[in-house]
Amino acid sequence: MNRISWNTLDAAARTQALARPRQSQNEELTAAVARLLAQVRADGDATLRALTRRYDGCELATLAVSDAEFDAAEAQVPVDLKQAIDEAAGRISTFHRKTAPQDIALETAPGVLCERILRPLSRVGFYVPAGTAPLPSTVLMLAVPAGIAGCDDIILCTPPDRDGRCDPVVLYAARRLGVRRVFKLGGAQAIAAMAYGTESVPRCDKLFGPGNAWVTEAKRQVAADPSGVPIDMPAGPSEVLVIADASADPEFVAADLLSQAEHGSDSQVILVSTSERLIEAVALAVDAQLATLPRANLARDALAHSRLIQVDDLESALQIANQYAPEHLILNVEDARRWLPQVRNAGSVFLGPWSPEAIGDYCSGTNHVLPTFGHARAWSGVSVASFVKLITVQELEPRGLRHVGPCAETLARTERLHAHERAVTLRLQRLAEVAP
Amino acid sequence: MNRISWNTLDAAARTQALARPRQSQNEELTAAVARLLAQVRADGDATLRALTRRYDGCELATLAVSDAEFDAAEAQVPVDLKQAIDEAAGRISTFHRKTAPQDIALETAPGVLCERILRPLSRVGFYVPAGTAPLPSTVLMLAVPAGIAGCDDIILCTPPDRDGRCDPVVLYAARRLGVRRVFKLGGAQAIAAMAYGTESVPRCDKLFGPGNAWVTEAKRQVAADPSGVPIDMPAGPSEVLVIADASADPEFVAADLLSQAEHGSDSQVILVSTSERLIEAVALAVDAQLATLPRANLARDALAHSRLIQVDDLESALQIANQYAPEHLILNVEDARRWLPQVRNAGSVFLGPWSPEAIGDYCSGTNHVLPTFGHARAWSGVSVASFVKLITVQELEPRGLRHVGPCAETLARTERLHAHERAVTLRLQRLAEVAP
Repeated sequence: MNRISWNTLDAAARTQALARPRQSQNEELTAAVARLLAQVRADGDATLRALTRRYDGCELATLAVSDAEFDAAEAQVPVDLKQAIDEAAGRISTFHRKTAPQDIALETAPGVLCERILRPLSRVGFYVPAGTAPLPSTVLMLAVPAGIAGCDDIILCTPPDRDGRCDPVVLYAARRLGVRRVFKLGGAQAIAAMAYGTESVPRCDKLFGPGNAWVTEAKRQVAADPSGVPIDMPAGPSEVLVIADASADPEFVAADLLSQAEHGSDSQVILVSTSERLIEAVALAVDAQLATLPRANLARDALAHSRLIQVDDLESALQIANQYAPEHLILNVEDARRWLPQVRNAGSVFLGPWSPEAIGDYCSGTNHVLPTFGHARAWSGVSVASFVKLITVQELEPRGLRHVGPCAETLARTERLHAHERAVTLRLQRLAEVAP
Repeated sequence: MNRISWNTLDAAARTQALARPRQSQNEELTAAVARLLAQVRADGDATLRALTRRYDGCELATLAVSDAEFDAAEAQVPVDLKQAIDEAAGRISTFHRKTAPQDIALETAPGVLCERILRPLSRVGFYVPAGTAPLPSTVLMLAVPAGIAGCDDIILCTPPDRDGRCDPVVLYAARRLGVRRVFKLGGAQAIAAMAYGTESVPRCDKLFGPGNAWVTEAKRQVAADPSGVPIDMPAGPSEVLVIADASADPEFVAADLLSQAEHGSDSQVILVSTSERLIEAVALAVDAQLATLPRANLARDALAHSRLIQVDDLESALQIANQYAPEHLILNVEDARRWLPQVRNAGSVFLGPWSPEAIGDYCSGTNHVLPTFGHARAWSGVSVASFVKLITVQELEPRGLRHVGPCAETLARTERLHAHERAVTLRLQRLAEVAP
């Protein structure tokens, strides 16, 4: 792990120290994904089947998961895991219900009723990766808020194994949370199918979920296409920034850093501390814990470009965090809450020694689909708001129009939009005729 | 205007009848904008000055509007217009404050405190077009919610005239609403400057505002660039869909249709009615009103691809509206509110005879930056939420971790993320040592 003493760096070196590995605009990948999207749009299911044969190594008669397959999956999931899924879903539901936007109505002037009403997206599409580790928790984090929003049609794509079967826990969690239309599709072809529709897979109004480089690039392209569909947020490798002082337990800090590092070799792991001793102890603890970690190889790659940054005070640590804008920010310092007002850019924040990131990943109740790669400067994580449209409404009584009409006439005249002005003037004239 | 009898059409013809003119992926424009963005990134202000010379026909010493220019602009704005701006700002502020997201905290389990906190975007960039008509109302619709969100650094670009001056009403409205950093920049170069930063123009965290095809394409490209910045929403021509029954005043309907048509030759105007007589009366009223409209040429072009659709009942009319997903939806029918629950896709809704779209454009209090081109199926208009990040926070007490930790351990084990599991297990062990 790379140790950095912050106050020895000039501005350029500091920017460099917080730079993420450039997501190389891989022109080959961009072109390959563009071709794949065009192919799926042109040939639909036939292309999906051919790509599934090539990449997942299986031949599918039907793309959709059948009821029998759902039943078989359910039979495979142990009871304690079912209970954990229910327990997590309960808390995620509690938090997301409480933070959901609400209908609001108010009079902005006498006789001018304005409203903000909610409508769910009609059909949403989820991508749930399999591969090195299936992610049933992603099903929780997407299906629970979509259900609260009232989305009645949810499509889920997840890749099959060589035998044409999907991960049983993913299938179980999906049906448990009301998702019954699951397709055995992985990679960019799944994104293409949900964005444009095929014979089997219906076109969705918005796409959600994590994925590999192909999936990420496909989501980027369909979001940029004026006839495509929007996506939850731009993606990048997962990341954590831990701020720890001398009070922190180095074992805890090391475990938190590793729980980010094990996600993949491109994961970003940063520790910022006021204590040189803590930094040294964490480095030792990381080595010790790494020895017994099944995914140690991935974690070791991630740690190779991690950073241990020593700062003079916690104010500097918070500045670094805000500049980096991490997906996950752990404040493992004394009286952690005191520093929360200084947090400006982060996806999700974990306060104090007893709040490991893993709890937020699974079951504190907050969402784990969060902005990475510095996008926390402008983006928020997934919430019920991600699944609804906020529609405004206005209803004017005659007295309301009399009250606010002249203001609109003046502004329309200024903007030289005379038909706008007339739409008001005509009505005011009619009102004057009726009740002068 | 094109008359259509809905129940004589088959499904394909219906889709065709509601199709928007395809936004031609103009490859020349795409390439030209990409070159321009690259040029601004490479040469900064020098490129901005050269492009302003070429497209706006003026030579600028400084790009930023000076205090003296703000003062001169203020002196030019008549008192009644200042009052109208203040009055509109007041109602817009009332509505946006009331509909702004709020900080929320709750316990999802004993000792598990979860929060959703708000943070404003640090620096936002606004584009305000000039050209055929300057749009001070756009300043209102962006600056008021940004101010409520707490954005403390607002950049605004608006093109200069041949004498190097910006529209005085735009400048007045900007300063009145706390926007002091205005740059004399138009077109795609303004978007490039705010997205990537130059010597004069700082890089912004998110870009807002309408514009011509160049601006729209530049916004699309910077939003699709992983090192670019997000934008308010994808753009298309402005549009209205009016649903009117036999009770509607044809003069009002005609005025509402024309107030959309005058925006530009690519504006979309649709009337859906149960009454053949109303449709005929509206067609006549449109012709009559068109005769005295200053922007009649633009409106006439827009009307050439407008549609007057006759339906059997209002249920069908609502279905058409939901399929089209209009930016503005006017329900000029008896007991209009009764139909609101059936509205699924729209940017903003206007109920009853006394609620012309022009009121929402200026001063009912709702926002007029709304999703066009069918994007209302998945996007919402601008609101305070567009200017904040929603950050989640969790703070666990030891009893909280004891309560929810085992659930996280089970799920982490299932996902084969052992470091995640250990970050919880280590802490639970420590707690057991302290208080077994």
